Amino acid sequence: MSNLTYAIIGTGALGGFYGAKLQKAGLEVHFLLRSDYWEVKQSGLVVESKDGDFTLPRVKAYNDTTQMPPCDVVIIALKTTQNHLLPELLPPVVKDNGVVLVLQNGLGIEEEVAQIVNHSVAVIGGLSFLCANKVGPGHILHLDYGQIILGAYAQNYHPTGITAKMRQIATDLQHAGVSIELTTDLLLGRWQKLAWNIPFNGLSVILDATTDELMSNSHTCDLVKQLIKEVLLAAKSTGRVIPETFIAKMLDDTDKMQPYRTSMKIDYDLHHPLEVEAIFGNTLRKAQVSGIELPKINCIYHQLKFLDTKIRR
Amino acid sequence: MSNLTYAIIGTGALGGFYGAKLQKAGLEVHFLLRSDYWEVKQSGLVVESKDGDFTLPRVKAYNDTTQMPPCDVVIIALKTTQNHLLPELLPPVVKDNGVVLVLQNGLGIEEEVAQIVNHSVAVIGGLSFLCANKVGPGHILHLDYGQIILGAYAQNYHPTGITAKMRQIATDLQHAGVSIELTTDLLLGRWQKLAWNIPFNGLSVILDATTDELMSNSHTCDLVKQLIKEVLLAAKSTGRVIPETFIAKMLDDTDKMQPYRTSMKIDYDLHHPLEVEAIFGNTLRKAQVSGIELPKINCIYHQLKFLDTKIRR
Repeated sequence: MSNLTYAIIGTGALGGFYGAKLQKAGLEVHFLLRSDYWEVKQSGLVVESKDGDFTLPRVKAYNDTTQMPPCDVVIIALKTTQNHLLPELLPPVVKDNGVVLVLQNGLGIEEEVAQIVNHSVAVIGGLSFLCANKVGPGHILHLDYGQIILGAYAQNYHPTGITAKMRQIATDLQHAGVSIELTTDLLLGRWQKLAWNIPFNGLSVILDATTDELMSNSHTCDLVKQLIKEVLLAAKSTGRVIPETFIAKMLDDTDKMQPYRTSMKIDYDLHHPLEVEAIFGNTLRKAQVSGIELPKINCIYHQLKFLDTKIRR
Repeated sequence: MSNLTYAIIGTGALGGFYGAKLQKAGLEVHFLLRSDYWEVKQSGLVVESKDGDFTLPRVKAYNDTTQMPPCDVVIIALKTTQNHLLPELLPPVVKDNGVVLVLQNGLGIEEEVAQIVNHSVAVIGGLSFLCANKVGPGHILHLDYGQIILGAYAQNYHPTGITAKMRQIATDLQHAGVSIELTTDLLLGRWQKLAWNIPFNGLSVILDATTDELMSNSHTCDLVKQLIKEVLLAAKSTGRVIPETFIAKMLDDTDKMQPYRTSMKIDYDLHHPLEVEAIFGNTLRKAQVSGIELPKINCIYHQLKFLDTKIRR
């Protein structure tokens, strides 16, 4: 295990879960909080997990990044709807020669982060497959999964090697009990994850449906396939070829999952802002650069923007 | 006024409204009913209308077309979701050399009807712009509009002249207080009506929204325009050119309307079957004949099929 110090920017279900696991493994972790700040400062974090429950009665809690020490690894675990705050939040807490690990959904966030931090800082993207909810202040319920795929960001998402920093962070997370995979092509990983998030997050919100309802109706199952095809087109426009066989595999994996309320559907039901721009808007804009139209994703995008506006009122 | 006899196949809000107006004007009208049969047979019809309320204490009510006399004009006023019943319902009630007037939404119904009735029977399509609800057994509330555009059907929807039968029926309806327009191109009229029904019926159901909500959000307003553009493409594939200026006019007209719950949204809220195939499915299939894809209408179609299945359970 390393002696790296960690900062968690955004201690919701995801940030709280991974941060708590790292602290439990013996690492120094600093948590940025907002609504739960006082409770967590006083009483720490509680993790109820299928892998075993644990509590951390004392954690280093902050409600302002200027009060945090600069850390070696800064994990962005906010919802992307908060990313307009990053230019203010990030600089005080990132050490020179440190790492920012983007553990968010969607496309192109690493590119944005790289423009905020100085050139000595490495940006790494993480694809997290975690099913967890925050059920109370500082109280996280971990339902399933939790693995992360790590990939280093290089300009324009050029594929990279496996860097030493990736290995260090991977080792820490593995010590903390998190399953880790390393990839040399972060963008490919992002597209593969979008191929699931775009149809299932989108349709679950618009049609008020769980994953199994979408899979068991021939019309939505067909629409899911067509949406994945458009994601594959978009991926291709950025030079990443995902074979069509990927579609059947993804549907098959979804069929085997427990009936599942997607993260975007949970946000919607709680009237939280939806990550429409990071997931859908950025996908459309990325394809548009190469003149590729994605009409069905476009349709879903406009529908979600309407619903997002409605719940924000 | 003529001495034509009329049959109303389907005495809901629309069939009840026009049938009652014709009877009030002195014409012989025979009403086919289902759920309201006993009440209407006993107590007749009540029309509450912005143009003046009236009641018809006695009407000729039937629950079986084999009991009805063959009539000169048979008005199909069922929901299209009941059209699988037409081969059984229609033949007994249509006089040789009579007329079937299709007062339904959607595309291609006249073609289907022409295959059911014998060759001496004229098929006429009617585009009804009526805002009315059934509020109780035999009780119709007429809120707004009511005009009808009549166009004769000829094989393959070839444009036709204004026929004598069209004029006769138009005269009767005008005497009954219904505003009538005659067209030589029924299919063009159908496409123009679909250009409204496809975006507004579809999105109102999927997004749980009224017309004014859809118009006042820039994203749904944009999506409405894109859907209308696809309808124009489909129209063009059948040789009917509708200029792009039609889109702005349609939006402008909608902006001037009262906030409006579409007929499909009313059906959805009542858990009635949705007219997805007649409006959306037939549009997709008609364009498909010419190899034209309508990806956004296709997306809406699949979403509506999912919702339709869900409410039918």
